[in-house]
Amino acid sequence: MNEFPLAIGIDFGGTSVKTGVVCGSEIIDLAPPIATQDFGGADEIIAAIIRSVGDLRKRHGGIRAVGIGVPGFVDFERGVVFDLTNVRGWANIPLRDMLSQALCLPVSADNDANCMAFAEWKLGAGKGYKHLVCAALGTGVGGGIIANGQMVRGAKFGAGEIGQTSIDFQGRAGHYGNLGALEDYIGNREIARDAQAAYQTAGITRDIEDCSPAALAEAAKNGDAIARARWDEIGRMLATAMMNACWLLNPEALVIGGGVARAGDLLFTPFREHLLRQLSGPFRDGLAILPAAFGHEAGTVGAAALALEEAGF
Amino acid sequence: MNEFPLAIGIDFGGTSVKTGVVCGSEIIDLAPPIATQDFGGADEIIAAIIRSVGDLRKRHGGIRAVGIGVPGFVDFERGVVFDLTNVRGWANIPLRDMLSQALCLPVSADNDANCMAFAEWKLGAGKGYKHLVCAALGTGVGGGIIANGQMVRGAKFGAGEIGQTSIDFQGRAGHYGNLGALEDYIGNREIARDAQAAYQTAGITRDIEDCSPAALAEAAKNGDAIARARWDEIGRMLATAMMNACWLLNPEALVIGGGVARAGDLLFTPFREHLLRQLSGPFRDGLAILPAAFGHEAGTVGAAALALEEAGF
Repeated sequence: MNEFPLAIGIDFGGTSVKTGVVCGSEIIDLAPPIATQDFGGADEIIAAIIRSVGDLRKRHGGIRAVGIGVPGFVDFERGVVFDLTNVRGWANIPLRDMLSQALCLPVSADNDANCMAFAEWKLGAGKGYKHLVCAALGTGVGGGIIANGQMVRGAKFGAGEIGQTSIDFQGRAGHYGNLGALEDYIGNREIARDAQAAYQTAGITRDIEDCSPAALAEAAKNGDAIARARWDEIGRMLATAMMNACWLLNPEALVIGGGVARAGDLLFTPFREHLLRQLSGPFRDGLAILPAAFGHEAGTVGAAALALEEAGF
Repeated sequence: MNEFPLAIGIDFGGTSVKTGVVCGSEIIDLAPPIATQDFGGADEIIAAIIRSVGDLRKRHGGIRAVGIGVPGFVDFERGVVFDLTNVRGWANIPLRDMLSQALCLPVSADNDANCMAFAEWKLGAGKGYKHLVCAALGTGVGGGIIANGQMVRGAKFGAGEIGQTSIDFQGRAGHYGNLGALEDYIGNREIARDAQAAYQTAGITRDIEDCSPAALAEAAKNGDAIARARWDEIGRMLATAMMNACWLLNPEALVIGGGVARAGDLLFTPFREHLLRQLSGPFRDGLAILPAAFGHEAGTVGAAALALEEAGF
């Protein structure tokens, strides 16, 4: 048996599905992505996924397990997708058993943020920690929690939704009626909107595309004071939500990934400052604040790693 | 052997130390309380505790273990008190070993809020739950977390500090530099101060003693609109912090205790409403919101129960 048994990881995103063969922490082959909008419903997408997996297995013998991460709520024990946030027609789909029966392989299905957290915990920046909080900053803000050396999924497998935690009890009204949800301040779209408004206040008209996190990072690197102030504020808001997780869970490490984290020090420097000045000794001393080791591949690698662990490899 | 082995529980409060003999969930005998201000330092208080335990053991044979809960940070694995919030001279005290050597019994030392949570989890309102968040509302706001059927203490045993989590990233400056800490809104003293200010705004002068949580509960029961509005606001602020714990940990149950929770429905009704309207299905459905089963005795019972479990009973 290989030191690294092969598995297939499937990263089911809001717009496309990426399916790859994973060896350890590497994706060694990728099927062409599946655009979710090209298909009518869950059955059609699942059939397309099964074809992709089949194609990859023709090229790679010895696949041991298949893992899939989806953007929404999953009953991890039963492998049933309750609901996907941005894809229609995915209520109560027994995804794990459908894939497992079609593929004759052990399959795991979990939330995408849990897969990302699993990748970072087992193979990435959070490797070796027993108490870890991971956050993925993108269009949405997701997360995953490890406590006592175990993944915390909670009563109905929803744990880790740091993007839905509030940073202001009188704040913006969120998707679920929650006020002041972090995601409603530092999600991709909200960063752009708030930056556009900040420029507007300063008498500067900017297209919304020129206010994206990537554009805002570029502007800040070029010395733009408004962009710099926005990154400080983003760091401060993220620090509040992560500080709350620290007071509750006293982790050894925080891992921050996702597209918005690609701003690097522009985000991490104010984040670290705002966070550390709001924690006492046992919470602050020795706390590792780490950029994620994985980028876009986190979901695929994590889904595969999780499937292998669940299958006993 | 008894069905319920006897243990001694010690509840080390900010002003006094209560030491009792515990059988199951009952305190069957209590030593006279020790007033902490009557003693010069840690050594003297520990000597007085050892005398109290000795006196109780003369009256009760078969004590199997001794547990102590203290108001501050404790290294649970080594039994060392780092620091007590409101008692001087308690830095790096090897409390567990000092007691254990003097008493020739197994001793556990933990944070008082963890002892309270342990009592509720093993013997009280939270019995049988695998995923549980407990909060104790008093002068301070403490808490304890159970996930995957285990107590979560975190990297340095500080986990569960829900009173330090922020409900407003631009809010009041707290004890540790943290902005918007829940405790700075719904601690005993802050409730009284905010109520006094609310009366003042309405042109009513009230002594601060007449604004205590107990007085405010009495006033609300008598139809006082200002008092009722305060309880709604307290419920809303508590709901924000507990909602954050729900999004992070997806618990099956919340247990709320401590003096402020004695307001009963005045607190629980708005708390429940504000909480449930800010959670989605997997977090809200089936969530048990429970008043604590134990009152003042929680710390003593919990410390004893924890000591028994740690000693293998």
